[in-house]
Amino acid sequence: MKRSDRLIGMTNYFINHPRKQIKLSYFMEKYEASKSSISEDLDIVNRMFEHEGIGRLNRLSGAHGGTEYIPHFDLDTSKTFLHQVCKQLEDPQRILPGGYVYMSDLLGNPEFVREVGKAFVTAFANQEIDAVVTVETKGIPIAYAIGQLLNVPVVIIRRNLKVTEGSSVSINYVSGRSQRIQTMVLPKRHLKQGMNVCIVDDFMQAGGTITGMISLLEEFEAKVVAIGVLAEVADEENRVIDDYTSLIRLKNVRMGAQTLSAQLGSFDD
Amino acid sequence: MKRSDRLIGMTNYFINHPRKQIKLSYFMEKYEASKSSISEDLDIVNRMFEHEGIGRLNRLSGAHGGTEYIPHFDLDTSKTFLHQVCKQLEDPQRILPGGYVYMSDLLGNPEFVREVGKAFVTAFANQEIDAVVTVETKGIPIAYAIGQLLNVPVVIIRRNLKVTEGSSVSINYVSGRSQRIQTMVLPKRHLKQGMNVCIVDDFMQAGGTITGMISLLEEFEAKVVAIGVLAEVADEENRVIDDYTSLIRLKNVRMGAQTLSAQLGSFDD
Repeated sequence: MKRSDRLIGMTNYFINHPRKQIKLSYFMEKYEASKSSISEDLDIVNRMFEHEGIGRLNRLSGAHGGTEYIPHFDLDTSKTFLHQVCKQLEDPQRILPGGYVYMSDLLGNPEFVREVGKAFVTAFANQEIDAVVTVETKGIPIAYAIGQLLNVPVVIIRRNLKVTEGSSVSINYVSGRSQRIQTMVLPKRHLKQGMNVCIVDDFMQAGGTITGMISLLEEFEAKVVAIGVLAEVADEENRVIDDYTSLIRLKNVRMGAQTLSAQLGSFDD
Repeated sequence: MKRSDRLIGMTNYFINHPRKQIKLSYFMEKYEASKSSISEDLDIVNRMFEHEGIGRLNRLSGAHGGTEYIPHFDLDTSKTFLHQVCKQLEDPQRILPGGYVYMSDLLGNPEFVREVGKAFVTAFANQEIDAVVTVETKGIPIAYAIGQLLNVPVVIIRRNLKVTEGSSVSINYVSGRSQRIQTMVLPKRHLKQGMNVCIVDDFMQAGGTITGMISLLEEFEAKVVAIGVLAEVADEENRVIDDYTSLIRLKNVRMGAQTLSAQLGSFDD
């Protein structure tokens, strides 16, 4: 098999298995190639991944060594993408009665979701993350996009107790906007004790839902090392959390609004 | 830029943009290469994708022509993966009180979810699918894995009316197992009229939930061209749907069971 063929096969492998260590011997056997040939291939792949702005290969030497693809995406590409999203969000037809913003069409687009995941993975590059946590429903695809790139599990907090999940921990909390008491449930089996987690959600107003998630995660002795929201309401006076990453800030999202404006979020600060 | 570099960049592009047509001129400009060079690159990529069992490049000639990556995965690889899943599912610790099977750890693993998506995309290869539909919550990651590979939107049916979604169509239906009346809601904006859809879910007993989804989709004049479930209960006597693809069949899933057995589903019939 030629080098050109191997490079295609290896690129496919790395793109589909980010943050997974693979030994040189795997490629040597698969492509019937020498260690030095595979090693040169990895140099070429690494150089091109960096050139394309999609990350790099991390090569660990020694008996337990291997190579893993560390995704890290070009910031300007993410910004260009998010500027386009801002324009789409400013369409007045997205304003729903009650001062909500319609985003489900975007969240239903797998390519959009993947780009959002890439932006978060780059923003969280300096954190050690063992699991991605979200609460049903709309943040779920974002959580999987991140989980896939970080090669870590996704944990979904439910709104009600489910018979199909076994014993669970539940909390009540007061939601920021409606001031109603709401429930969150996390089955005990879903998350080991003492994990480093990142919390993600699609939308944040005052942050009551995220505060609820943090409280529930305390029951699992989890350490929240990163919080990411796709869109936050910018002019919110009663914010209850302060250390988070938003990709987009929405202004003038309120009851009776006729227009709204969208700009890059704390991601770009 | 050398051919070896271009092949890495092009492989990355195709893997991340399945079923999206791209013109030769895009790669010619990006890599400052001639039409004949890019054309030869595409031949090499196509041959290697087929060799690796991940699909092929579809090249359309003419002024509006372009190249798209059609994912189609090796059936034996999917079978090997699903046999491993069956073994995992047969662990008696997965049996929950009430005769349910714990699968959330698997569904929380992004690599597992991607493999499930690959199996379904291969099973649905002969269908024209415009959108993937599921009902919250556990089928959502599978729906996105399929939507990403087919490059079509994902539509999530909700269990309750949401203020953040605008006007909606809702139906009531009788669930197969509990015989209770349940509700499903789909916002009007989520799905255009007259689409070809595939329905997916994580688990099917009698099929009441899927029958409910079909009824709701009739309100959108959607044509259900494929139905896929990750796991079905094999020895179910009151099945209400018959034309579907299951990846895994579970036997002896019932109240008070101490063991269960799992085997490949209709996917392998």
